[in-house]
Amino acid sequence: MTGISTPLLDRIKIPRDLRNYSVSQLEQIADELRAEIIDTVSVTGGHLGASLGVVELTVALHSVFEPPADKIIWDVGHQVYGHKILTGRRDRIRTLRQGDGLSGFTKRSESEYDPFGAAHASTSISAGLGFSIARDLRRESHRVIAVIGDGAMTGGMAYEAMNNAGSFPSDLIVILNDNVMSIAPPVGALSKYLPQLVSSNSMRALIDLSSSFTERLPQSLQMVADRADGAVHKLLSGGNIFEELGFYYVGPCNGHDMKSIIPILRNLRDGWHRGPVLVHVVTEKGKGFVPAERSDDRYHGVGTFNPETGELNKSSGGPPSYTRVFADSLIREARKDDSIVAITAAMPSGTGLDRFGAEFPDRTFDVGLAEQHAVTFAAGLAAAGMRPFAAIYSTFLQRAFDQIVHDVAIQNLPVRFALDRAGFVGADGQTHCGAFDIAYLACLPNMTLMAAADEAELVHMVTTAAAHQEGPIAFRYPRGAGTGAALPDAGEILPIGKGRIIAEGSDLAILSYGSRLHDCLAVRKELAGDGMSITVADARFAKPVDVELIKSLADNHKAILTIEEGSIGGFAAQVLHVLQDQDLLDGTLRFRSLYMSDAFLDQDAPARQIARSGLGPDSILRMARSLLKG
Amino acid sequence: MTGISTPLLDRIKIPRDLRNYSVSQLEQIADELRAEIIDTVSVTGGHLGASLGVVELTVALHSVFEPPADKIIWDVGHQVYGHKILTGRRDRIRTLRQGDGLSGFTKRSESEYDPFGAAHASTSISAGLGFSIARDLRRESHRVIAVIGDGAMTGGMAYEAMNNAGSFPSDLIVILNDNVMSIAPPVGALSKYLPQLVSSNSMRALIDLSSSFTERLPQSLQMVADRADGAVHKLLSGGNIFEELGFYYVGPCNGHDMKSIIPILRNLRDGWHRGPVLVHVVTEKGKGFVPAERSDDRYHGVGTFNPETGELNKSSGGPPSYTRVFADSLIREARKDDSIVAITAAMPSGTGLDRFGAEFPDRTFDVGLAEQHAVTFAAGLAAAGMRPFAAIYSTFLQRAFDQIVHDVAIQNLPVRFALDRAGFVGADGQTHCGAFDIAYLACLPNMTLMAAADEAELVHMVTTAAAHQEGPIAFRYPRGAGTGAALPDAGEILPIGKGRIIAEGSDLAILSYGSRLHDCLAVRKELAGDGMSITVADARFAKPVDVELIKSLADNHKAILTIEEGSIGGFAAQVLHVLQDQDLLDGTLRFRSLYMSDAFLDQDAPARQIARSGLGPDSILRMARSLLKG
Repeated sequence: MTGISTPLLDRIKIPRDLRNYSVSQLEQIADELRAEIIDTVSVTGGHLGASLGVVELTVALHSVFEPPADKIIWDVGHQVYGHKILTGRRDRIRTLRQGDGLSGFTKRSESEYDPFGAAHASTSISAGLGFSIARDLRRESHRVIAVIGDGAMTGGMAYEAMNNAGSFPSDLIVILNDNVMSIAPPVGALSKYLPQLVSSNSMRALIDLSSSFTERLPQSLQMVADRADGAVHKLLSGGNIFEELGFYYVGPCNGHDMKSIIPILRNLRDGWHRGPVLVHVVTEKGKGFVPAERSDDRYHGVGTFNPETGELNKSSGGPPSYTRVFADSLIREARKDDSIVAITAAMPSGTGLDRFGAEFPDRTFDVGLAEQHAVTFAAGLAAAGMRPFAAIYSTFLQRAFDQIVHDVAIQNLPVRFALDRAGFVGADGQTHCGAFDIAYLACLPNMTLMAAADEAELVHMVTTAAAHQEGPIAFRYPRGAGTGAALPDAGEILPIGKGRIIAEGSDLAILSYGSRLHDCLAVRKELAGDGMSITVADARFAKPVDVELIKSLADNHKAILTIEEGSIGGFAAQVLHVLQDQDLLDGTLRFRSLYMSDAFLDQDAPARQIARSGLGPDSILRMARSLLKG
Repeated sequence: MTGISTPLLDRIKIPRDLRNYSVSQLEQIADELRAEIIDTVSVTGGHLGASLGVVELTVALHSVFEPPADKIIWDVGHQVYGHKILTGRRDRIRTLRQGDGLSGFTKRSESEYDPFGAAHASTSISAGLGFSIARDLRRESHRVIAVIGDGAMTGGMAYEAMNNAGSFPSDLIVILNDNVMSIAPPVGALSKYLPQLVSSNSMRALIDLSSSFTERLPQSLQMVADRADGAVHKLLSGGNIFEELGFYYVGPCNGHDMKSIIPILRNLRDGWHRGPVLVHVVTEKGKGFVPAERSDDRYHGVGTFNPETGELNKSSGGPPSYTRVFADSLIREARKDDSIVAITAAMPSGTGLDRFGAEFPDRTFDVGLAEQHAVTFAAGLAAAGMRPFAAIYSTFLQRAFDQIVHDVAIQNLPVRFALDRAGFVGADGQTHCGAFDIAYLACLPNMTLMAAADEAELVHMVTTAAAHQEGPIAFRYPRGAGTGAALPDAGEILPIGKGRIIAEGSDLAILSYGSRLHDCLAVRKELAGDGMSITVADARFAKPVDVELIKSLADNHKAILTIEEGSIGGFAAQVLHVLQDQDLLDGTLRFRSLYMSDAFLDQDAPARQIARSGLGPDSILRMARSLLKG
């Protein structure tokens, strides 16, 4: 248990309990909540900076509104540790992001206080509009509040949602949490515009909004509201981007000053303005924890640390991460070829492109939380003769599926897709799992797909992708550290569509695509002890898949087993296609495929997720034994 | 050949030829071009209104800029009939949208004057930024122009691209073609904002922009520029949404007045302003053809017609379209259930939701060209207890893949997806082909998938989807007219995951998913004449697939053949999964699957596309014979 003292917070079991406290007591509760979050994340690791930035906002929202009747929807959802503590989950908060513990994001199945789960960005306004329209149709009267960061505001769907919500009379409160820093330093025109909006409004004289607030406030709150005046502004002339999209704009106001935000929220709660409202709240990521405030990334996502000093507990060393190997390989290729450029959608450090950008600032493009644009931008670059690498996590590339089909694959443009976080991702859970990329890319004509069995393979695949000018090409690799494979000094260009046999045998052939290869080799060893002879091959390519290799495996073995860390419809479907075409299924050959089970798995250690999904060594062994017996 | 007279246009083979003509001659060329477009589309059918609206803009762009060195990128691409005529394709223009003819959209493989193909909306700014950044990196000096409509401007990726482009110093010209009407009447806040922008600027006194133009113009053009003054405005105070996103805003100007737009384009060509510029051009869809101007949809997409009167040639009658059957069925369900609501992304008439909206205006939501928002909005509605039907073409739903995964499937929310235009779509060609939905949806846990074998089945599937509260459910149906099946008075709730046997036999079982069923029955008949006995079954569900049915087919036949009008990785992969799990592949059972060949097919009659893709009666017959022989 914790050594920190939280006397007021200890009395808060659910949000309703907050209503008994004065604003200054709520300030104390916020301070205690902040201490509890720091202590928790020091043990569990997680998204610290964002949760610290919204501590006051969280307390204010839960004290003013009436969840769960009122719907509070947090965009991205990684800033909700405080929200979880206040909504009946404090007793489990130190299981955050652990197997069988609390999710690191909002989750409908976890609490009635999470009306809508979120872990990808920019979804909250769309979901909020759904709730508000449903409320109107049902003639209900609760409030709907979407809290969205300035980073998520750069995502196209936030704009689509504002454009739609701005044309409805439905009451919807959007809180723009402008922390001037989402994950990486902010990019794009909006990031220059928001501070301008803040300063231009701050310079303006005070204000009709504050006075109308004051008039409507109950007597007892007048003084608070008067003090809040300094922070409550309205744009007096001209429009701003939110007003142009049909929202009533309130702000900016200091999101760490409860005396500013509580009166505004109370008035909005009481129906002071009808229709869509946007409250512009300025906060500081990592607020209140000096090591985070001083850190470049504001402790966006951290491992465990010393809660007194903020010192991060060192990881154990070991092999470099796949991300690192990718970045180093791409840097080497870019030194040789001026036409290589790299694109990230607001994930420079997550993808390793911060390292690339340090050496090639003019050839590195962080386009914001905007995967759709990222991919078509890359397609434009490729059409103009560049060699673009779009480095986007498997799960986030889902956002750009149509752009991959329509702008890249149909036009057969040589965009290179570096798919980090392919397969299970551990603590980030089901929302970030890179499960579907093989299926959603292998169905596309013109596409070439590779998967790295280890970090040495990744080096070759970066080189292969750099050289590949015939059309789009993607390569996937897992989250986390490599296997310890010796890294080659230089990558080689792999022959397109050719796999490799790692170990020869004669009874059963296991054909692996990607990172499950090493467990296959372990199974081979175990079965050799039982006198069985297993071939293990690494397909390297899911598309085009190696027809000669498959034929030879079929000709020389009684059974073939494929394995991939991905969903149904991917590599296995490609292999089956060859077996059909070559009439190889008609004889006595047995064929089985292992892929992820048909379920979204919760956060857990990756090895346990793999095992639970039927792809671990035990599952391979069981299937191999059954095929050998038959 | 045509009876119209086009003396000046006849002399234009490529855009360079336009440079010999005066502005008033260019006006005549525009008039001739308009006549040629009307005459062409009266024969071929196609997207008439949009192409007529940009006739002057097309001539102006090609006379001022220097394509193909300068890159002109047309968003959506259905407005490019004039562009095609001016860029060396006039001799083939009457093959538009026909098999082996010209595509109805821009297409890189068709012409060097099409630097980037487009048929889905909102891609041009992203692609344009790719070209402009590549130009800068290569130290080249050509111009990049993206032409985007106000409808496409509501798509999130246009905003993502502006936010990114607005932060770069790279020269990029975006022309906003504001025709106040994209396909359907405009929706969303932006549609109210743009006319406001037009009128507020028009009311302002004239201006520094015009004078600076005038100063820089060569002497001979002074007069033209002076006359243009009345249409050239600059926003003097406050910002507008484009300026806030970092663009220099010019306009609005009359897009049908060459004397207005040519001087502006010339100055931009000559580098009058560096960095991203947005030129706001106001045009009228269908301009210059009275029947189109008077029509509600401005002849957005038309069949053949009388070029004198505009009278549309009647189609031959026959069965109702699937779209119509869907809409009527949904209306029937909605009369019984208040919680049913319908969502379209700017396609009310294409999806049939215009009919639904006429009866249920408060329960119909056109969210703009915004599929991402549409799906998460639907998820919000479902989370709040409504029964939302998101009616989105198969090809456009690709835009919302991540929202389907993250907001719908992971949360297991009962959103109903009505996938019109599934499978081949004929004249719209490869960009609109509904090829991938089975693959990209069947890989998702929690998803239920149906496909309608005929329009009677579609009625039942609408009823089934309305009743299905256990999770997300999708049903696909083809473009065009039904098969003539008798329509039931009321839909029945189909048992989830159960197929049906249509005709029993004993040698081979054909298991069809969706609309290929009727050709399977024809093949059965033909083979019966040869003494062979074929079972034909309709799977109805790809997920969950009917395990009992598959087992029984496997037990009672020598071979199973599956067929679907979709890509690899879909229904066949699901059937294989069952066969593996049940150890049904190990014996003598033969198994084959027919799905779309691995290619993007050009526009053609749907039956020819089906045949070319290996899914027509000949292909089924050949495969069946080969399975029966073996």
